[in-house]
Amino acid sequence: MKIIVQKYGGTSVGDTERIKNVARRICRAKEPGVGLVVVVSAMGGTTDELIRQAQEITPEPSEREMDQLISTGEQISSALLAMAVQHDGSDAVSLTGIQVGILTDDSHTKARIFKIEPEKILESLDEDKIVIVAGFQGFNPKKDITTLGRGGSDTTAVALAAVLEADVCEIYTDVDGVYTADPRIIPDAVKLDKISYDEMLELASLGAKVIQNRAVEFAKKFNVTLHVRSSFNEVQGTFVSEEADTMSMEKVVIRGVTYNKEEAKLTITMVPDTPGVAARIFKTIADGNINVDMIIQNVSAEGFTDLSFTVPRPELVKARELVEEISRDIGAGAVSVEDEIAKVSIVGVGMKSHPGVAATMFEALAEEKINIMMISTSEIKISCVVRSDDGERAARAIHKAFGLDQE
Amino acid sequence: MKIIVQKYGGTSVGDTERIKNVARRICRAKEPGVGLVVVVSAMGGTTDELIRQAQEITPEPSEREMDQLISTGEQISSALLAMAVQHDGSDAVSLTGIQVGILTDDSHTKARIFKIEPEKILESLDEDKIVIVAGFQGFNPKKDITTLGRGGSDTTAVALAAVLEADVCEIYTDVDGVYTADPRIIPDAVKLDKISYDEMLELASLGAKVIQNRAVEFAKKFNVTLHVRSSFNEVQGTFVSEEADTMSMEKVVIRGVTYNKEEAKLTITMVPDTPGVAARIFKTIADGNINVDMIIQNVSAEGFTDLSFTVPRPELVKARELVEEISRDIGAGAVSVEDEIAKVSIVGVGMKSHPGVAATMFEALAEEKINIMMISTSEIKISCVVRSDDGERAARAIHKAFGLDQE
Repeated sequence: MKIIVQKYGGTSVGDTERIKNVARRICRAKEPGVGLVVVVSAMGGTTDELIRQAQEITPEPSEREMDQLISTGEQISSALLAMAVQHDGSDAVSLTGIQVGILTDDSHTKARIFKIEPEKILESLDEDKIVIVAGFQGFNPKKDITTLGRGGSDTTAVALAAVLEADVCEIYTDVDGVYTADPRIIPDAVKLDKISYDEMLELASLGAKVIQNRAVEFAKKFNVTLHVRSSFNEVQGTFVSEEADTMSMEKVVIRGVTYNKEEAKLTITMVPDTPGVAARIFKTIADGNINVDMIIQNVSAEGFTDLSFTVPRPELVKARELVEEISRDIGAGAVSVEDEIAKVSIVGVGMKSHPGVAATMFEALAEEKINIMMISTSEIKISCVVRSDDGERAARAIHKAFGLDQE
Repeated sequence: MKIIVQKYGGTSVGDTERIKNVARRICRAKEPGVGLVVVVSAMGGTTDELIRQAQEITPEPSEREMDQLISTGEQISSALLAMAVQHDGSDAVSLTGIQVGILTDDSHTKARIFKIEPEKILESLDEDKIVIVAGFQGFNPKKDITTLGRGGSDTTAVALAAVLEADVCEIYTDVDGVYTADPRIIPDAVKLDKISYDEMLELASLGAKVIQNRAVEFAKKFNVTLHVRSSFNEVQGTFVSEEADTMSMEKVVIRGVTYNKEEAKLTITMVPDTPGVAARIFKTIADGNINVDMIIQNVSAEGFTDLSFTVPRPELVKARELVEEISRDIGAGAVSVEDEIAKVSIVGVGMKSHPGVAATMFEALAEEKINIMMISTSEIKISCVVRSDDGERAARAIHKAFGLDQE
């Protein structure tokens, strides 16, 4: 049997009218001989409302009870969606995480799946029923309900696709697919037909809106082909798979340009250039539960170096306090901060073996007279930090320089 | 271990403030050495809202999916209540029907419990946790969620009390207990300290607001002592048990007066008094899904009889149509209806062996110059139908005649 897994997010099932629309789409996809498994998120707003009620009860609800509570959101949307599919004349059955048999570890609110027992799904598929699965949830060996954390419904869908050896895992969202850039900033941005898992991961700042990185990593690990597409039209979206793009053997393929202005930069001057200093600095920041993104350390001069790094902007004040303290402790110099920054990145497999890529990017910025404040590179990404006023212009110039508007 | 089962209805947990109040009450009841199991209904309004959403999807949702849907109401309230109890410093854990192990038959929306596997509850009690159980729900052998129908949370509580051999099953509600009459009609009505299961069943028209008959029948079958009391104060309520009241050995104890004006009366005149005729009439009405309450057939004269019975008033039009049709078929006479009626009843074990009881009741009505339209008696109940204008006055007169205001 050909098996298709579909996943609909909270916006797609935001109210009963939208649930009916999704049901019609599901019924169209239900061809003879196709086993259809649909994973659904909570209706937009439901989860927030449940969290609000919990907060009214206590500022620190136990995570075990939070999971019992918020898992009802997906149970509600899956039951309503099953009713809507039945109303349209197809047979359907909704299942919760416990009913599906999604076994997880014990980490409430951010559980990891370790096993899926798909017997009940397979039985239902054999009876030619469309299976509607409440996403985002599972249960631990003690039979407590667990939830999978942010983007958990994506993870549920990919995990089911892996276990059921589905032909494709369709991720329905409110955009048409993955674009070369954010169309709100770069109107010339073009939808990509296909993309590799690694590129998808690096395009996260675009991709965050369509699928969580954790689910992409999962898909990569189990080689599940994803199809990211819109639930509001029939247009083909973007396929994400390991398949090498034949074109990329010959020429560099820059997949897209990402733009992020949610970060701030800290610089510690005159850091003693001795082993263990960097570790001490970043251990302190990590202990403060702050994620560091880019880290740049220049070549040392006379035993001292300047160290710059970026953090999410809301964490800047806390990060600065921590850094000033550690700076005194290690005998470093002043700490400066810069929160008017934007990060522009290009992503594409194979760019490392093409030295011209970085040059093309820097030239595009130079022509626009945009100053580069930081540079960082990875195997498939080059990022530049610029002044936030220059950010959008920088993204557009780079998008054009790589011909992405003509994909 | 002494085990107490408590049950809180939808009004008692109507919002997060009330849930916090209930939590404080629960924590006070949690004495050392006491195992506390709390059954909770959905927050008032939640179930209606879920049903409304289902109706927006389809006018005839499948019962299997309705159960998946509305069982979330109790899951939400039980999780919130567990959080509130934890916030007040006691250890607690919420459990759904599947987690508790409440196995039912396959009748969705009105399932019957056939087994409870209390291991998980006993484990939690051993860990000195207060167990908060989502009422109204169970699961069938196929692992589908089922619900227990109207008053299902009462049934859950009584069933758990039976299986756990609890000392008492406390039913918390918004009234102080069971009264000799409805205090809104008879201000002199007095709260009863104790009452038997059968009396409680007959007082249903009072009792409907405090506990469902199905749960009382269940309690009687398994000899579970009920304590019906208010969740808004600490006053002792009414105990319901099999224990013979020593007083009733000596004198008749009329437990209460009930009053019901939600019925209408139909009379078929000149019914041929031959075997099978009554069966045909009431089969027709039953097929129309109409519940008949009182049935009176007078002694036949010359092969014909008059047959009167009462039905819920909203069913009167439908019942009349059915009855007029069957009346023609069987060659009976005209059908008359009377919807301006009220039924007044007295309830008490042992009245049958005291012939004076009925006489006292009829005298009380005669003194008030109230005409009796129908009379019906059972082992522990006498009911009179009177004109609805006379109803409340009749109830007050009878209440006084039996000295119920001096309990």
